[in-house]
Amino acid sequence: MTAHLVTGIGELVTFDPQHPGPLGVAEDAALVVVDGHVAWTGPRAAAPAADTHQDLDGAAVLPGFVDSHTHLVFAGDRSAEFEARSAGLRYTGGGIATTVAATRAASTDRLTARARALAAEARRQGTTTIEVKSGYGLDVPTEERLLRVARTITPETTFLGAHVVPDGVDRSDYLALVTGPMLAACAPLARWADVFCEPGSPVAFDEDESRTVLAAAAAAGLGLRVHGNQLGPGPGARLAVELGAASVDHATHLSDGDVAGLADAAAHGGPVVTLLPGVELSTRSPFPDARRLLDAGIEVALATDCNPGTCYSTSMPLMVALAVSLMGMTTGEAVRAATLAGARALRRDDVGHLRVGARADLCVLDAPSHRHLAYRPGVPLARTLELPGRGHVEHPSPAPSPPR
Amino acid sequence: MTAHLVTGIGELVTFDPQHPGPLGVAEDAALVVVDGHVAWTGPRAAAPAADTHQDLDGAAVLPGFVDSHTHLVFAGDRSAEFEARSAGLRYTGGGIATTVAATRAASTDRLTARARALAAEARRQGTTTIEVKSGYGLDVPTEERLLRVARTITPETTFLGAHVVPDGVDRSDYLALVTGPMLAACAPLARWADVFCEPGSPVAFDEDESRTVLAAAAAAGLGLRVHGNQLGPGPGARLAVELGAASVDHATHLSDGDVAGLADAAAHGGPVVTLLPGVELSTRSPFPDARRLLDAGIEVALATDCNPGTCYSTSMPLMVALAVSLMGMTTGEAVRAATLAGARALRRDDVGHLRVGARADLCVLDAPSHRHLAYRPGVPLARTLELPGRGHVEHPSPAPSPPR
Ligand SMILES: [Zn+2]
Ligand SMILES: [Zn+2]
Repeated sequence: MTAHLVTGIGELVTFDPQHPGPLGVAEDAALVVVDGHVAWTGPRAAAPAADTHQDLDGAAVLPGFVDSHTHLVFAGDRSAEFEARSAGLRYTGGGIATTVAATRAASTDRLTARARALAAEARRQGTTTIEVKSGYGLDVPTEERLLRVARTITPETTFLGAHVVPDGVDRSDYLALVTGPMLAACAPLARWADVFCEPGSPVAFDEDESRTVLAAAAAAGLGLRVHGNQLGPGPGARLAVELGAASVDHATHLSDGDVAGLADAAAHGGPVVTLLPGVELSTRSPFPDARRLLDAGIEVALATDCNPGTCYSTSMPLMVALAVSLMGMTTGEAVRAATLAGARALRRDDVGHLRVGARADLCVLDAPSHRHLAYRPGVPLARTLELPGRGHVEHPSPAPSPPR
Repeated sequence: MTAHLVTGIGELVTFDPQHPGPLGVAEDAALVVVDGHVAWTGPRAAAPAADTHQDLDGAAVLPGFVDSHTHLVFAGDRSAEFEARSAGLRYTGGGIATTVAATRAASTDRLTARARALAAEARRQGTTTIEVKSGYGLDVPTEERLLRVARTITPETTFLGAHVVPDGVDRSDYLALVTGPMLAACAPLARWADVFCEPGSPVAFDEDESRTVLAAAAAAGLGLRVHGNQLGPGPGARLAVELGAASVDHATHLSDGDVAGLADAAAHGGPVVTLLPGVELSTRSPFPDARRLLDAGIEVALATDCNPGTCYSTSMPLMVALAVSLMGMTTGEAVRAATLAGARALRRDDVGHLRVGARADLCVLDAPSHRHLAYRPGVPLARTLELPGRGHVEHPSPAPSPPR
């Protein structure tokens, strides 16, 4: 068991209370990795001896980004729909059918190659833990196939059969399928279940339908996540609290009652609120008010929602920059949201921080401080630090047990 | 004289009317380069023979970005000021003094190394022509020094002694210095002169002062550019028209009269309007209304304004994405603004397009279409295509003669 020493860390963001500030920042720091995990952090001058060594020449290091919300497994391209929106059309969710048709027609090899290319692209930008949803199959064999592909990338797989009601299928028939045979086929391949709860969309699910989907998934042993309050006010956030979901995602349109409910729940491990500002950017929609949530004491995460329709980005650094410049967050809050809070949204305590015992998933910046993620928007500063003996691991996390 | 053939271009944006659409796009295309210039473009099947050959496997190729507005030569860091703004403070221009102090104290070697690193960073993101201003010296020896550094990077150098009135110096004394000895020392090193015309800022220049600066610069043989209408309504755009400037930059706060004047002038080569959306992003300010300008028939360019205070970004792809998602431009309009219109803002006809005879400055995307620059925000898709025998050229453009 060899120890690897990393020195020359101008600023090390750990979230370890032994280091100062809300981010637990050590300056002129070093870090020791043993067996893929953090064994020591502190000032360079106090670093213990080690077997191997690398120096980062003053770069900032933070926990690898945790992208807790993506739809990486799909085929086809919706740049034409993007262009149409740029000419003034509004997003209603209807374009998902285009991706479903292309995905059903694609071979598993092609889907795998594409998803792995996107996961590698995310990793090159500093993402070390990624969640991947199904939801572009909408029939039993394809949803199962998508989750098998997702499992080659990450243990954080999510069954999203309840993405939309497919064209030409009766709503109640589809609900019976999703909560019956489709769930039975998919539950062994997934850690989570999710639902697109949006009463204002003709293709998404209303409150009763969403509760039915989530209750069935919980009974099958899956942890819960909710797409809610994206396009308008709705029951998503309330349902997430009621059913003990790990996260409610989008959450752009929250009532005062929703915020109060989330704040109450936050005191005893209630849902993280995961904001997806790339979606607002790409759909020319108003950005969520992160300040309001943070000021209420709610844990806010940031994720990409990477998907071909409403945000085809794998860039966590962009999400940090947007959160700071357009959503009222400080750089510290945004970095926490992209790391520690993302891990909490996945109920993971081994990633998203660099306390002793954490996975040594490291993001290194070509910059002296985490602030530069927002101060230098668009510049590709972040990359994953590859450690000796670990090689290029695209699915670095061991499968956690399902959250019961 | 060898001919180099590039094939496998999924989409080639040329702005050549021999190819279809406003962007002059050839699909499944090829391009021949002879002696560093475009010698032929067209369908792959019709490509002539050549001495050397490379294939891009379906990637999109466009003219290298023209970043017509940067302040690359400086020392110091203003991330603390950025943080303060994130906590709610407003940008007034006062922070420039911090950079001036650090820049005066820095060695020429250090300034050169930093500026060249930023230019190389821009180039890695697809920028092949870059304008660089002075303006962080504000005394004769330092302004001259900054322009000498800038000349090692680009022929598109701009004298910006009239950036702000330095701390503790009388306004009229400073104006006499800028239009007298400082201009005399700097004019031989610059192609352009610029002024920060902003009556609402305590440190910038009002209408009469700006006219005095620009008239003296024109008399010294320099082409004119104007920082105008950034922080509020003002005379900048009007002055740019009156004095025949090549570009008015920022232009966030334009009156109907300003737009009408720019539109009239556009018919006979009047100023390009250069929008700098990274500044609005980084200062949490309202974005300019690009649609209004385009609909009036005005040529709109995009640039980074890369500087340590209000937009520390070298990323032209980010500017394209922001323009499409937050400023009402189509992807085609934004790509034109970042290439052809940028070249027009520098009165260059050898860059910004790929018609026969243009410099072979090529930007290649890890994507099938120029649309992906906005459709895939934040993802580092763009890079400069290095051609055999040209090597890595950081200042690829020959010095054009001054625009008299
Ligand atoms: Zn989603
Ligand atoms: Zn500027």
